Amino acid sequence: MISVAEADAVISKAVKESYAERVYVQPYQKVSLESSLGRTMTEDLLADRDQPPFDRVAMDGLSIKFDPAVLDQTLNKVAYLQAGSPNIFGSPWTQANDALEVMTGAALIEPWNTIIPWEDLDQVGTDNLGSWRIKAGLRVREDQHIHHRASDYAAGQNLLQSGTTIGPAHIHLLASNGVSNVSVYRQPQIALVSTGDELVAVEDTPLPHQIRRSNLIAIAAALHRLGLTSKYNAHAIDEREDLHTKLALALQTCDIVIVSGAVSMGSFDLVPSILQELGCSCLFHKIAQKPGKPLWFGKGPHGQLIFALPGNPVSSLVCFRRLVLPWICPALNAANMLHLPLAEDCNPAHSGFTRFAPACLVDQGFGPSQLSLGKAQGSGNFFSLIPSDGIVEIPPNDKPYPAGSVVRFFPWY
Amino acid sequence: MISVAEADAVISKAVKESYAERVYVQPYQKVSLESSLGRTMTEDLLADRDQPPFDRVAMDGLSIKFDPAVLDQTLNKVAYLQAGSPNIFGSPWTQANDALEVMTGAALIEPWNTIIPWEDLDQVGTDNLGSWRIKAGLRVREDQHIHHRASDYAAGQNLLQSGTTIGPAHIHLLASNGVSNVSVYRQPQIALVSTGDELVAVEDTPLPHQIRRSNLIAIAAALHRLGLTSKYNAHAIDEREDLHTKLALALQTCDIVIVSGAVSMGSFDLVPSILQELGCSCLFHKIAQKPGKPLWFGKGPHGQLIFALPGNPVSSLVCFRRLVLPWICPALNAANMLHLPLAEDCNPAHSGFTRFAPACLVDQGFGPSQLSLGKAQGSGNFFSLIPSDGIVEIPPNDKPYPAGSVVRFFPWY
Repeated sequence: MISVAEADAVISKAVKESYAERVYVQPYQKVSLESSLGRTMTEDLLADRDQPPFDRVAMDGLSIKFDPAVLDQTLNKVAYLQAGSPNIFGSPWTQANDALEVMTGAALIEPWNTIIPWEDLDQVGTDNLGSWRIKAGLRVREDQHIHHRASDYAAGQNLLQSGTTIGPAHIHLLASNGVSNVSVYRQPQIALVSTGDELVAVEDTPLPHQIRRSNLIAIAAALHRLGLTSKYNAHAIDEREDLHTKLALALQTCDIVIVSGAVSMGSFDLVPSILQELGCSCLFHKIAQKPGKPLWFGKGPHGQLIFALPGNPVSSLVCFRRLVLPWICPALNAANMLHLPLAEDCNPAHSGFTRFAPACLVDQGFGPSQLSLGKAQGSGNFFSLIPSDGIVEIPPNDKPYPAGSVVRFFPWY
Repeated sequence: MISVAEADAVISKAVKESYAERVYVQPYQKVSLESSLGRTMTEDLLADRDQPPFDRVAMDGLSIKFDPAVLDQTLNKVAYLQAGSPNIFGSPWTQANDALEVMTGAALIEPWNTIIPWEDLDQVGTDNLGSWRIKAGLRVREDQHIHHRASDYAAGQNLLQSGTTIGPAHIHLLASNGVSNVSVYRQPQIALVSTGDELVAVEDTPLPHQIRRSNLIAIAAALHRLGLTSKYNAHAIDEREDLHTKLALALQTCDIVIVSGAVSMGSFDLVPSILQELGCSCLFHKIAQKPGKPLWFGKGPHGQLIFALPGNPVSSLVCFRRLVLPWICPALNAANMLHLPLAEDCNPAHSGFTRFAPACLVDQGFGPSQLSLGKAQGSGNFFSLIPSDGIVEIPPNDKPYPAGSVVRFFPWY
């Protein structure tokens, strides 16, 4: 039995190898920029022009050619310059108090080189084009409110490297550089296989000793929400032949196989031995954690990743959120794992086990967000997860953790 | 000019009213459970049966009829009980040390009433069915490792109320109660309208004084990722007629209109006056914040929500993340806003303004996750957002905040 930290290390290494071998290979996909958030780039992005591409007006107002002598004089508007226009409308600059009305985003034209925002001006004249004075006591700096050409980056600069996950700001950068379709690695193909004679379809009316399947539907919903899809879905009865056939098909068609049920110590827990028959190697079986101890993880004969989760619904959800999702979905945001203080005292699990428990984020009005566990519940009770915001990871300890102790938090998606 | 807190209150109230009036009305949609994460339920969920529906075996092992006298005797397996089976295979219970092999998930049959997990047993006999002894020193409790019928909830109980946002655990609950298609409120219809003569399409090659459009593509990508879509997309030039036509169409077809550009103080900032012509009422214009001061927010003649964002890309992204997204997307998870300590000293904005800045989550190996701002950048530079994990909100203050001060953090999606 290994620790949660050891499991993280084993899974992380195997996913890295497997993605490099199976997923991060050609042919690449092209996706529209609108649907590219969270995808991984296959190419560097080189700047196609300077940014800004010109000396960009950063405030609406008047522009002058800076001259200390003119700051307490009346400024006369002689022309205006619109964003998107290559030319001024009006007369060119001829003397120090000639001002140009400018719009944010316009490409400034020499010799005008300093911008006074409208907020800092008082209108004085009522003539045709208008006259203004700078408000008393304001300091005007030569060059102010101009976003200079190439001050963000220069044409040819390597802006984003291959392997980057596309976030909101990346979309701006890609769009600004003319990339409307972006080359990304394909998504992993995921198979979901459940097993258990007691399980019937959601649509069916269960007999008294049966229950409806829910584990893989919850996982399918999570994948759907995160932009991944399951390519192969199957339910097997607790018989070698059926399970063998369905796991073999899953391994044939997918990069990642997620199995639910039959990984524990029962006589019908056939998954580990059938996976072995199919050429899969076990990288670990059982983690010192509650719930979710029976988790099995391994690799298929062609580098496929196999996560076999316990059939208990709470164990299934905890294992998926904590030990599957972060590794197979590189697009999860940075806040998918946080360190936060406990709102109350908290008991660890016994005998060196890591405890996972549902928790809510609470704010006391001061200090960082805290984690409140509510009352502890048995691992079979998924109803107890309903009011939670995510799960906390309570490391093994020989005494209770006092309120304020910092633990890991994994929010629901 | 209002504060960020006042803006939150105004937007929250208007969204609530508008959703009740326009979005949370019939006809409802039915969606498959797999695609229902983040959607809002229109009906209560009543339990269709007890949970568990039977006395459910919670561990693989042997079951006995509890009797203190038998705990140090040899237990003889006389039958086994599979999950999903209504009957035992083998002989019925006749004497105290008759044991039943049980599988997790099986419906326990009287008089067997206590479960000893395999981990706690040593095999002693090698006969046909097998004999076991409980490991020395173990305490066995009557009734242990049984998840009792109706202990989670009873048939008929109201489990989820109308108006609930569906999360991962809710999927289990819905599936277990036979709901394969769930009735949800429709998603809001969103229109995106940008304006600016200097802006060309991403596919186009801009002239020296032009730039490519990126603001609404970034917003469309965010909506796409969060399961929302924009129903109407348009770009208008800086002329009253074109802008009037396109904003009118947006208001006709959508619940929410997001406008980019032309809301500041320039002569061509036509958006506020045209929205007024179209019967929209301004609920605020300008917030004491940097960047994003020019934000305009109001309601249309039929309760539509209108967010008019500044055209500057960083302002646009900050306003969208901080003041639009949390209100229009009820499905954002609880960790979409957190209170966390600053990793370094941090300057507020001047003169009563709230400052927003990109930040990264950092872990020092102890204490809560912290926020690192890196070096401050001008609001026009979206390249500076690239390495960030989200934005921090630095409230107005007359002196710098020392490291460790707790501020709000809004992670990217």
